Amino acid sequence: MSMTGADLLLQSLYGMGVEACFANPGTSEMQLVTAIDRIDGMRSVLALFEGVATGAADGYARIAGKPAATLLHLGPGVGNGWANLHNARRAGVPLINLIGDHAVDHLALDAPLTSDLDGVAGSVSHNLIRAETAEGLGEAAARAYASAMTPPGQITSLVLPADLAWAELEGATIAPMPPLPKPAAVEDSAIDQAVDALKAGGRRVILVGSPVTGDEGKLKKLGLIAAATGAEIIADTFVTKTARGAGRAGIAKLQYFAELALDQLNGTAQMIVLGTKAPVSFFAYPNVSSYLVPDGCAVTQLARPEQDVDAAIEGLLSGLGIDPNAAAPVAERVVPDAPEGQLDAVKCWQSIARHMPDNAILSEEAATSSFGAEAFLPTAAPFDHLQLTGGSIGQGLPVAVGAAVAGPDRKTICAHGDGGAMYTIQSLWTMARENLDVVTVIFANRSYAILNVELGRVGAGNPGRKALDMLDIGRPDMDFTQIAKGMGVDAAKATTGEEFEDLMKAACNRRGPFLIEAVI
Amino acid sequence: MSMTGADLLLQSLYGMGVEACFANPGTSEMQLVTAIDRIDGMRSVLALFEGVATGAADGYARIAGKPAATLLHLGPGVGNGWANLHNARRAGVPLINLIGDHAVDHLALDAPLTSDLDGVAGSVSHNLIRAETAEGLGEAAARAYASAMTPPGQITSLVLPADLAWAELEGATIAPMPPLPKPAAVEDSAIDQAVDALKAGGRRVILVGSPVTGDEGKLKKLGLIAAATGAEIIADTFVTKTARGAGRAGIAKLQYFAELALDQLNGTAQMIVLGTKAPVSFFAYPNVSSYLVPDGCAVTQLARPEQDVDAAIEGLLSGLGIDPNAAAPVAERVVPDAPEGQLDAVKCWQSIARHMPDNAILSEEAATSSFGAEAFLPTAAPFDHLQLTGGSIGQGLPVAVGAAVAGPDRKTICAHGDGGAMYTIQSLWTMARENLDVVTVIFANRSYAILNVELGRVGAGNPGRKALDMLDIGRPDMDFTQIAKGMGVDAAKATTGEEFEDLMKAACNRRGPFLIEAVI
Repeated sequence: MSMTGADLLLQSLYGMGVEACFANPGTSEMQLVTAIDRIDGMRSVLALFEGVATGAADGYARIAGKPAATLLHLGPGVGNGWANLHNARRAGVPLINLIGDHAVDHLALDAPLTSDLDGVAGSVSHNLIRAETAEGLGEAAARAYASAMTPPGQITSLVLPADLAWAELEGATIAPMPPLPKPAAVEDSAIDQAVDALKAGGRRVILVGSPVTGDEGKLKKLGLIAAATGAEIIADTFVTKTARGAGRAGIAKLQYFAELALDQLNGTAQMIVLGTKAPVSFFAYPNVSSYLVPDGCAVTQLARPEQDVDAAIEGLLSGLGIDPNAAAPVAERVVPDAPEGQLDAVKCWQSIARHMPDNAILSEEAATSSFGAEAFLPTAAPFDHLQLTGGSIGQGLPVAVGAAVAGPDRKTICAHGDGGAMYTIQSLWTMARENLDVVTVIFANRSYAILNVELGRVGAGNPGRKALDMLDIGRPDMDFTQIAKGMGVDAAKATTGEEFEDLMKAACNRRGPFLIEAVI
Repeated sequence: MSMTGADLLLQSLYGMGVEACFANPGTSEMQLVTAIDRIDGMRSVLALFEGVATGAADGYARIAGKPAATLLHLGPGVGNGWANLHNARRAGVPLINLIGDHAVDHLALDAPLTSDLDGVAGSVSHNLIRAETAEGLGEAAARAYASAMTPPGQITSLVLPADLAWAELEGATIAPMPPLPKPAAVEDSAIDQAVDALKAGGRRVILVGSPVTGDEGKLKKLGLIAAATGAEIIADTFVTKTARGAGRAGIAKLQYFAELALDQLNGTAQMIVLGTKAPVSFFAYPNVSSYLVPDGCAVTQLARPEQDVDAAIEGLLSGLGIDPNAAAPVAERVVPDAPEGQLDAVKCWQSIARHMPDNAILSEEAATSSFGAEAFLPTAAPFDHLQLTGGSIGQGLPVAVGAAVAGPDRKTICAHGDGGAMYTIQSLWTMARENLDVVTVIFANRSYAILNVELGRVGAGNPGRKALDMLDIGRPDMDFTQIAKGMGVDAAKATTGEEFEDLMKAACNRRGPFLIEAVI
């Protein structure tokens, strides 16, 4: 059978289970585009900007539990996708970047689009593979897949010179699924130490990260441990996915601001760290500790993110003598009242929690507008909560795109701040192109509200007009309804609780993309 | 006098002439924001996305002839700005990135926004400076300024940990203007060789780059040389700035596609290369040469971009015995007829050239829609033509922003393809916020039209529906009129020559931002 290098690469990846490619191709990737075309089962999703493609691949992996591919054009394509790769990298999400490069001979000529591609891709990848031969592209696909699936998940970038992609191969065979690395074992001594810590007196907190929070089963077992020992389960402020809502074990979230997190953890005597690391604040502030473990609190590192968190939890249950099949305490469904009067973020969450259907996906990057959500989300219908994991804003819309591609039978809600939404607003067009079932709520407060908070906290002095202008995204106010319609997504504005409620109810009762601009 | 580290840095830069800062700040840059606030003469321009900030700094420098600063937030801020930094780097535009980093102690804690900042910034900078002490920030500013002003111009990134920015300094003094590097001398032997080449028989071409094309005076002198010797002057396909239009020496542009460029240069016996390098194609294609110098053509490298192109031109005039004060042949103004009938790109250019006022700035990234422009631009009113220099699309709108900031009394026209425009569409909001005098024309062909051309050229086989979908940005068609209005820029659509003409005329007769969606 004759095939091109691009065919060998993509058919090998497809055989391993890579079924979606989020693409923004250029001339050097044309062979990859037509190779995807020749694979019936592989879905290609066009993004108008690479940050949409990389964020969507992240969202896809969080729901599908396996990597998607991105298709990126040379160094600038990686640059445009870098911020959302950063977010995925911080969270340990599996992802495979297919990056086209100039043909090898052409590279030496230093054409205008030549750049330090390995530098920019390497700076955000766990693993960078530069394909050397066309014949080796099946093996390169296998290496890339195994790398991406290395626990908890890795950003793998595969650089493909154009001449390898267009090479004709005779008798090439598709690479089989490679052996996949397993999570590293948890030390028995760490389990013993954690059991002792949980049996000790005083306030005990189990801090958990992304490898734990997305799995309803793990959270129920932790709920049993909490009920039996009096320990509290607290999740990292931002994790890839949290299984939440009625019928699931509740879980608290670590506060975002350092002072509030320190208050929240105050008096903790024992901290058991599971699938994450000891907590640190997002930013440093003059005269505030960045390390959030209270003085005198003992820390037990039970399992790092790349370790076997399942075995760690089983070890705790066994060491504490808890029946893993006992009924864990779970949240009950509470349907909030319909909101009324002038709209604010809390009323939006009230309405979202009223209407979000069973098994929905919530991609949330609401920044300061998220603060009211915790009153409603724990008792909403069961849903998966996806968050901004690496702090680089502009992730929520692309993640919603990818999540909706991975979960076509589930409703996706994207709740997003207006400032962050503008980084990757092109996502809306992909929602329209693919007719994705996503309801987007934009919290339009016309401000980088979080920076107004931070400005005071970092002690930057009395801000004048020019400084305040840098934190204000009004003048002119953006009209997200028009922007959405301009990209093919139907949209409407709400300024009262009643209006929001009507729009949210209608949007949850239809399929396809819709945007609500919540003027708050 | 007491000041912060941020004050010392910014006041030093301001003293050297850095008067504009294109900013997208985050928490780690709050001290820089308030330090700018305290400098009356420094203009801060907010961008909703960093690619707008970096592209705007590029456009500013092309018109102002000196660097602006950008203000970028950590590694992700650099990532978002990377593609337009690539474009500026390829063109040798002076630019200073001020990049906030975590406080030094905080960095060690590996907080969520920690990344390989030096890696991502270093991969697109000529020079990366990491500030080490608050007291040294004046000297760091001087190093950064001198680095940026190193001929022909360099991307300089200055990384500033937050704790240095907030440090209080007693008795610090603002750094004076450093000595600036001069262009490297041109070898006498290179001039002699070039003079001999110009005196030789056969077809002779002087290929010129960005250090030459932006200066009306240099182009006139080259026009004298062309008239005296019969040599042709051809500019690189894409340069930072070309002084064009009536009253200026005409200049041909090298064709974009390799085959067309090879045809254009066919039969050249002598190529003299001035302020650029011997031509290569953008992309490689199977069985087509990437090196565009015809077989048997002798190449004389007269001056590289970093060398003294003025001295090189004077050397030619002297060696050829040409009076530099003779009257050079210049283009005459031709006012095209008003376009009529169904709109196409050529008719848009016809109308643009009719109405573009004297001394306008044209930021052009029209891709396939630029092909008709050359019939009208050489005889338009005199203007500066700014182009996409590094091949990474999404530069034209940001460059228009920065150019308009640098040239507030000049009309800026931004002529842009629809696909490229969506990469940095957030530029429109900054145009509205700053009330910039920019008329934007979007050539809405609803396609990555150039990729449809390239798909055949790279021999990628018969494209199927999925492949063609990746090159098509219709379904849904974007409505740029709505998108623009959603960002505060008034806009209208044209589908006929008459409609375009009416809109273009009106837009050129008023001040402030306006967008015309040319449906072609």
